[in-house]
Amino acid sequence: MRIRVVAFDGDDTLWHNETRFHLTQEALRALIKGHAPDADVDRHLAEVERRNLALYGYGIKAFTLSMLETAIEITDGRIPTTDLKTILGWGRQMLGQPVDLLEGVQDALVEAGSRYKLLVITKGDLFDQESKLARSGLTQLFDGVEIVSEKKVDVYRSILDRRSIKPEEFVMVGNSLRSDIAPVVELGARAIHIGYPLTWQHEEIPEEDMPANGWYRLDTITEVGKLLLSLDENGP
Amino acid sequence: MRIRVVAFDGDDTLWHNETRFHLTQEALRALIKGHAPDADVDRHLAEVERRNLALYGYGIKAFTLSMLETAIEITDGRIPTTDLKTILGWGRQMLGQPVDLLEGVQDALVEAGSRYKLLVITKGDLFDQESKLARSGLTQLFDGVEIVSEKKVDVYRSILDRRSIKPEEFVMVGNSLRSDIAPVVELGARAIHIGYPLTWQHEEIPEEDMPANGWYRLDTITEVGKLLLSLDENGP
Repeated sequence: MRIRVVAFDGDDTLWHNETRFHLTQEALRALIKGHAPDADVDRHLAEVERRNLALYGYGIKAFTLSMLETAIEITDGRIPTTDLKTILGWGRQMLGQPVDLLEGVQDALVEAGSRYKLLVITKGDLFDQESKLARSGLTQLFDGVEIVSEKKVDVYRSILDRRSIKPEEFVMVGNSLRSDIAPVVELGARAIHIGYPLTWQHEEIPEEDMPANGWYRLDTITEVGKLLLSLDENGP
Repeated sequence: MRIRVVAFDGDDTLWHNETRFHLTQEALRALIKGHAPDADVDRHLAEVERRNLALYGYGIKAFTLSMLETAIEITDGRIPTTDLKTILGWGRQMLGQPVDLLEGVQDALVEAGSRYKLLVITKGDLFDQESKLARSGLTQLFDGVEIVSEKKVDVYRSILDRRSIKPEEFVMVGNSLRSDIAPVVELGARAIHIGYPLTWQHEEIPEEDMPANGWYRLDTITEVGKLLLSLDENGP
């Protein structure tokens, strides 16, 4: 069956995201070092984030709250209030930053959009994701937008059902093996993985746990049009 | 045209919400009083929330971040870190609290569901709203769920379009004049307002700015079935 709908992940597929978390986390390490020189900030923050995931979900607000909690815990409350105010400011700054598209995104979308219906399927904070999409200037290239709290098989299934899309005519493009590739392949659809230099620890999945078939790898989004064409010619 | 779809707001229409914010805000006032006895905490918090709305959107995480910012600002940073940790804990507690349904909700939904398709259209934090709906035990009573970041005319229009619902066959039920009633009536659909004892300042709208027709008032959700029947008999 011919490909009819191609969906793209947002964060780190269309626009830079993890880099910003990474830079902020670097600043957090430096800030905390002053009060707790021997602290393993990364490990502690990862643990706090993991613990809070079921309550906070994903996104910058969740990250900010977890940074504050980490800073207080790891310094046994010795971190001064002014530093906590600084951390609050980082969160606001991250939320307000201009959207920085990955190279080639606009052209790749225009090309793919000339042959297929395009969707965005992105995970995270509803308000922040909508805002980023609006600021990206890409909205009018997409036929639909889905912002979800988790990218699991059932979630993809309900999106496809609701939009009357058969798995065989659907391709998902994204940077996370766990969220964009594995569940889509499990559903019987195809997926294209485009790695991003940084991946949040929570999004990692051991290579050997990935399905053997049904997904493809690209270095950059620039090549996505060519790959889609060749998939279309060779059938599912 | 007969009513075919009835949509319900979530917070303070199906389950208690604002009461919890109110109680937490009361605790914040008490906490801050110890460090800044003359501070007008409510006014300052409202101002911080208003300022942050375009960045944070709605919900408990946004509220927690704004409480922290208020506590630091209003005490000129004199609030001790342990108190900020307490505020962080309040946020986590609010997010984890059991969902407390308003009286008569379950029966009213079962009754309405026997005659109409039912939707939830709720505003706020995606992760938190999904979690509340799941914990409410009401999910299976609804034919669909829409969680949106703002309840404006365009948002309602796109939901109705996507679900092939004509405005004349749609009724929205909710507690906010600004979010649940005014935009729905503007769209040419009908709406039922059920007041909640507390309304967040941001959701208020002067009575005289409301449309004269197209919406109705009830004291409790218990009466919603009877009103829908009578609207159906009398036509749009």
